[in-house]
Amino acid sequence: MSGTHHAAAIPPQPDFTATFPGPHPASPHSRRTERELLSWLEEYPLLPHAKPRSILVNITSHGASRTFPTAAPDDLALFAKLLLWLTAFDDEHGEANAAANPAALVNHSGELMFVLTGVTPSSTANPFPGALHDLLARFRARTSPAKYLGLAASLRDTITALVWEAHHAAEPDGVALATYLAMRPHTVFVRTIIAAAEIVLDYELADSQRGLASVRCLESSVANLAGWINDLASYQREASRGPVQPLSLPTLLQARYHWELEQVFTHISGMCEDEADTARQRITELACAAPSALSAHARALENIARSFIWHTSHARYH
Amino acid sequence: MSGTHHAAAIPPQPDFTATFPGPHPASPHSRRTERELLSWLEEYPLLPHAKPRSILVNITSHGASRTFPTAAPDDLALFAKLLLWLTAFDDEHGEANAAANPAALVNHSGELMFVLTGVTPSSTANPFPGALHDLLARFRARTSPAKYLGLAASLRDTITALVWEAHHAAEPDGVALATYLAMRPHTVFVRTIIAAAEIVLDYELADSQRGLASVRCLESSVANLAGWINDLASYQREASRGPVQPLSLPTLLQARYHWELEQVFTHISGMCEDEADTARQRITELACAAPSALSAHARALENIARSFIWHTSHARYH
Repeated sequence: MSGTHHAAAIPPQPDFTATFPGPHPASPHSRRTERELLSWLEEYPLLPHAKPRSILVNITSHGASRTFPTAAPDDLALFAKLLLWLTAFDDEHGEANAAANPAALVNHSGELMFVLTGVTPSSTANPFPGALHDLLARFRARTSPAKYLGLAASLRDTITALVWEAHHAAEPDGVALATYLAMRPHTVFVRTIIAAAEIVLDYELADSQRGLASVRCLESSVANLAGWINDLASYQREASRGPVQPLSLPTLLQARYHWELEQVFTHISGMCEDEADTARQRITELACAAPSALSAHARALENIARSFIWHTSHARYH
Repeated sequence: MSGTHHAAAIPPQPDFTATFPGPHPASPHSRRTERELLSWLEEYPLLPHAKPRSILVNITSHGASRTFPTAAPDDLALFAKLLLWLTAFDDEHGEANAAANPAALVNHSGELMFVLTGVTPSSTANPFPGALHDLLARFRARTSPAKYLGLAASLRDTITALVWEAHHAAEPDGVALATYLAMRPHTVFVRTIIAAAEIVLDYELADSQRGLASVRCLESSVANLAGWINDLASYQREASRGPVQPLSLPTLLQARYHWELEQVFTHISGMCEDEADTARQRITELACAAPSALSAHARALENIARSFIWHTSHARYH
């Protein structure tokens, strides 16, 4: 399954050739999306430094074009802006900065909550609330109240998860594995991406469809997969920053089982491959039905999984 | 306007006899609601101590019966449970306990977030997630996806606001007045009560109605009024606990203007009376229309305002 033949310096990685074989489809609008992101960042300077900005704009436009390869150009650009906003917010106000000062992130979360309730932000010193306000107005204008509220709920949950993460980053060993596993989909943004799919691709699950065991199982598998392959891809970069181990699945499994790194990566790779198997089975079941919201959702989840698999191979992680 | 003739020991209070004259209507189902709350608390022991439990159940059933005097008995009891849950959560895990240990409240907020995403809580050591899960299932079963999501959004915002409050309770003077004013409606639960109105009283605003300036203005006035009269009613009790001044409007105005307490209370009483005037004008405009979701909403907001006016006269504050 996962490649135990790798050299020691490159820990084992999951193998998705059976479950999500390439080549993965990509939208033809990636270049246009990249230009739109750069222009949007002139209005909302979320990333002050040129090099991280250019890397993030590149990975985001390519990532978005793989997440929703069939999206119309405007929808794709709007989604890419949301993805960029999330990643930039996490880079600027989450992660290391938030771990050093959780109260500052709590204050940011308050400002974002006001925007989510419909308040127009007044300050321009911090571009994140204004940029979020702009995005929410655009999403709200192009979709139903229920789909908009679903997206907004996932954003609220992500912010809650980032605040939670900030309060535990200094002592990751104190986090229960089950809590980490439940929180991880929200810090990797995959729940927001799933909520955005119905808007970007213009289908709508009925409440009864959303509650189906097969739909919930598919969403959970893709959500877990996204977090775990991201942890595998980012662990060594984050661990090298020290002095504390990153709040990441390899850290928690090492602490729990006293395994070597290679053993941990082998184990997580197996977990990823199992979730990919489960996701593939559910996709096959749901997508073989006649064209419907359910089959559209299954195809969307397939591409979301593919985009995370693609994403970890990008230069940002090397 | 506000009574500057009071003795020094009883600071000036707002006068609502012109804007919200009594007697305020109350539901005939208050006793039944009280019994249902006590029975529910046997299943979910949110309040371990008998005396606070009995006081809170009493104020909640009477308060709910004034908030929604025309609600059907089952809807009234469900709403009262939600109100009880919010107040009990704040008493047990917010306020003083949270100020001493904000990280613990952050962990609770994570557990509640999981429940809000649809996860069934496993632990029974802490009854709050299970009780919330029970409430959400009942609300979801009796309303539309958009109304349910609106209620859930307001609960997420309340939890975010309580976490914010916990991070500032030790140093209230560091909080900007504008931020406090924007946050206060969420910590006093009035936004959740407004969101619940459409479910409990079974009407539904169209998105275009929800966005009307008059509706937003009415909601803001009632939301401000609720927070400010609550601050006036609870300030002396909270301040007497010391050593730090409570995170409350009187504290922030004293710090900003170096006023005496009587001057602060006179000023806030005037603010309350102004908001009550504004609310009354908007209610008159919206409620005089033909029976519709808009007039139902105006009447609901009128009773929500009355319930907060009534609430501060209850024994809990004396």
